[in-house]
Amino acid sequence: MLHLNAFLMTVGHHESAWRFPESGLTAAWDVAHYRHLARVAERGRFDSVFFADGPSLQGDVRHRPVGRLEPTTLLAALAGATEHIGLIATASTTYEEPYNLARRFATIDHISGGRAGWNIVTTAGREAAQNFGLDDVPAHRHRYERAAEFVEVCLRLWDSWEDDFLLGDKESGRYADGDRIHTIDHIGRFFRVRGPLNVPRTPQGHPLLVQAGSSSDGREFAARYAEAVFTAQQTLAEGQAFYADLKARVAAAGRDPDLVKILPGIVPVLGRTEAEAAERAHELERLQVAEYGLRQLASLTGIEVTEADLDKPLPDGGVDVTEVQGAQSRFALVTDLARREGLTVRQLLGRLGGGRGHRTVTGTPAGIADTMEEWYTSGAADGFNVMPPLLPSGLEEFVDHVVPILQRRGLFRTAYTGSTLRDHYGLPRPANRFAPTPAAP
Amino acid sequence: MLHLNAFLMTVGHHESAWRFPESGLTAAWDVAHYRHLARVAERGRFDSVFFADGPSLQGDVRHRPVGRLEPTTLLAALAGATEHIGLIATASTTYEEPYNLARRFATIDHISGGRAGWNIVTTAGREAAQNFGLDDVPAHRHRYERAAEFVEVCLRLWDSWEDDFLLGDKESGRYADGDRIHTIDHIGRFFRVRGPLNVPRTPQGHPLLVQAGSSSDGREFAARYAEAVFTAQQTLAEGQAFYADLKARVAAAGRDPDLVKILPGIVPVLGRTEAEAAERAHELERLQVAEYGLRQLASLTGIEVTEADLDKPLPDGGVDVTEVQGAQSRFALVTDLARREGLTVRQLLGRLGGGRGHRTVTGTPAGIADTMEEWYTSGAADGFNVMPPLLPSGLEEFVDHVVPILQRRGLFRTAYTGSTLRDHYGLPRPANRFAPTPAAP
Ligand SMILES: Cc1cc2nc3c(=O)[nH]c(=O)nc-3n(C[C@H](O)[C@H](O)[C@H](O)COP(=O)(O)O)c2cc1C
Ligand SMILES: Cc1cc2nc3c(=O)[nH]c(=O)nc-3n(C[C@H](O)[C@H](O)[C@H](O)COP(=O)(O)O)c2cc1C
Repeated sequence: MLHLNAFLMTVGHHESAWRFPESGLTAAWDVAHYRHLARVAERGRFDSVFFADGPSLQGDVRHRPVGRLEPTTLLAALAGATEHIGLIATASTTYEEPYNLARRFATIDHISGGRAGWNIVTTAGREAAQNFGLDDVPAHRHRYERAAEFVEVCLRLWDSWEDDFLLGDKESGRYADGDRIHTIDHIGRFFRVRGPLNVPRTPQGHPLLVQAGSSSDGREFAARYAEAVFTAQQTLAEGQAFYADLKARVAAAGRDPDLVKILPGIVPVLGRTEAEAAERAHELERLQVAEYGLRQLASLTGIEVTEADLDKPLPDGGVDVTEVQGAQSRFALVTDLARREGLTVRQLLGRLGGGRGHRTVTGTPAGIADTMEEWYTSGAADGFNVMPPLLPSGLEEFVDHVVPILQRRGLFRTAYTGSTLRDHYGLPRPANRFAPTPAAP
Repeated sequence: MLHLNAFLMTVGHHESAWRFPESGLTAAWDVAHYRHLARVAERGRFDSVFFADGPSLQGDVRHRPVGRLEPTTLLAALAGATEHIGLIATASTTYEEPYNLARRFATIDHISGGRAGWNIVTTAGREAAQNFGLDDVPAHRHRYERAAEFVEVCLRLWDSWEDDFLLGDKESGRYADGDRIHTIDHIGRFFRVRGPLNVPRTPQGHPLLVQAGSSSDGREFAARYAEAVFTAQQTLAEGQAFYADLKARVAAAGRDPDLVKILPGIVPVLGRTEAEAAERAHELERLQVAEYGLRQLASLTGIEVTEADLDKPLPDGGVDVTEVQGAQSRFALVTDLARREGLTVRQLLGRLGGGRGHRTVTGTPAGIADTMEEWYTSGAADGFNVMPPLLPSGLEEFVDHVVPILQRRGLFRTAYTGSTLRDHYGLPRPANRFAPTPAAP
């Protein structure tokens, strides 16, 4: 069975989405909008919904509703509006403190009955750095080193209460077994954290760990910690190569590759006919604002070009990818795409307008299901990160027209069988590192 | 009209609460428990519910369910379960970053339709410091200096979007007026923050600012920033002195004293008769565990005594209050109480078991209403921070039996008349510091 995650971004992933009649001008920070989306995704039996995030105003607000809600608080609000679906929020290891973040995710896991997931990112943008006392983003390597220590601290904090700490003896006044609640006494390069956490161990043991950076450092990090991986892949061949590489790294790290689910992004531009789908794709592209796209390109890749360059090829910045201190994998993807297809800047902006580098598939429900099946059965994906260009309609159409086809083909669940997010992804509840291992019989 | 805030703490404020039959052993981190409490408080037309917090495991978990949920995420969950009542969470200026916290409270204000409040604290405990790379709590003065700068940064971030930023011109592609969204370019002693926030201005403009430290530094801070003040006061005379002092400081800071609401804590131990109430108070005290109380005393005041000292008077640590680096006002309150009433350590622990220094009032509903009316009409309170010893029953009884008496006496609302938390407290929506002042007519 494949896995589906609904990547919910404001009024849709396409930068023109807000200009469509259906789109609410303030929906991007209206909890009712997200409540509706989460319920639609749950009706479609999605594994999870997901919110991206960064601690800065990203993108050009003059041309797009980029204001938004903070996702950990939003997840908590959605927990009460849904029953089954997993709830994944992005949070940054570069600009948070492990004790604070571990508590919030533990709380969401309790509140949702075991449906929380954390998309662990290191945050590539300079704007974010400048909201935290820095002039520029810390070096790529440094961010991933901090991320690894950050996650280690969180894992220990989430285990700091053993599952069976409770005595609950009202008669004698002994509430808990103090020997089953542990300080963690972490002393590392980036953090010193004593513990224990002040939240008991959660239904899932700890939230599902998701990772979404595809650089070499990012893959190594994913191999060690991730249980699900989001990634942007433009072609089937690239998708297969990434899939094989990451699963091999997982095995090399001593983990079971089946227990790390790889979900490439897909931007489905749907129509009842091919022609209708193409017409919609065209309309989305027609409504793009070049000024916005250029700024977005600069923020994705660091490549600065002006409106005068729109009909020229993308300049080769002469930069080696490993020197990119922002988002390395996105830089490589965009420059490869432009070179491979010989795109002008204007054409490139058209290709990036929907998914910022994620694959756009334009077609009928059956055609889109075909592409998904092909990627799934040919070793490029364990599932998909579905990124509707317009919200809510793009998600509603996907749930009503694509999901039933996947279900008829036996590729996707028709009902939830478990109750936690890890259940949906077919992953076991992790053991507690502080608990005594059960004695051999 | 007086104001009522329901201070919701795990299964009740009294340290013996968990040993009562009604008390659920894991209710302290069960969202359903808090959902019920918030709805009961809303049925009683309370202004707000409130959660205390600190980023560490506080108190002795062996003798009390001190594990809990993180309150900003909890508030977001409660927003969807309630319609009118204000939602106040504590967060620490010592262990958070302003950009992160400003976003979360802005998000909760959006999600709740303008019902968010922030209890600003500087966090006195050493345990918390050790979860954030420190050996001990930063100096008292230093914490309050950081708190002031922290709040200034948040206020600017919350104003960084003017209310009328929206153009929403789908035709031309102009979404927002960039001139109405501002960087804040803050450069201070503790923080450098560029802004703007990535969340638009909220229904309340910004969350209600609440303050709860009563030391001299704490009062100065409250005079500058607070819109509501929680405080622990043992006697009417102390309550009046605090009230007069704080209102005078507010005036001296150039603000209108009526726009800062002072709410002393009250722990109501209710009975249908005086005898029944006294019996319940006795039962609560009987179930206290001395070992727990001694540890709690040490953490409240820094005074370390052993079980051997239980029947002796509280030792005079010889410490001057201004040298206390933890919670200065609570140190003063506890040592004054013990001295004034000549209490042994055991008696003192009995007095602190319910409210950790907050006033306990034992009696019938009418008797408790009398006390509240007296404090309210004689210049000691604008309202009360109601701290039920047992939850949920202590809150249910208060709502069913005390609130109707206050309503009959014309002291308390019978229906909500506004929609935001500031509406309930009779406070205006703040102006935006970046918005042009309206031209004279
Ligand atoms: C589906 C997907 C979602 C992502 N979401 C975020 C996000 O919300 N915030 C963020 O900082 N980075 C996010 N990233 C990662 C960045 O795109 C970028 O890859 C990362 O910051 C640096 O990774 P890298 O240098 O390892 O490629 C996401 C990536 C993918 C594939
Ligand atoms: C009702 C009430 C609630 C409080 N809640 C908290 C809290 O949740 N977290 C916290 O660190 N301090 C809280 N405080 C403040 C501390 O008790 C203590 O006063 C503060 O940390 C230091 O203040 P001071 O030294 O100015 O008195 C609260 C105080 C009152 C009166």
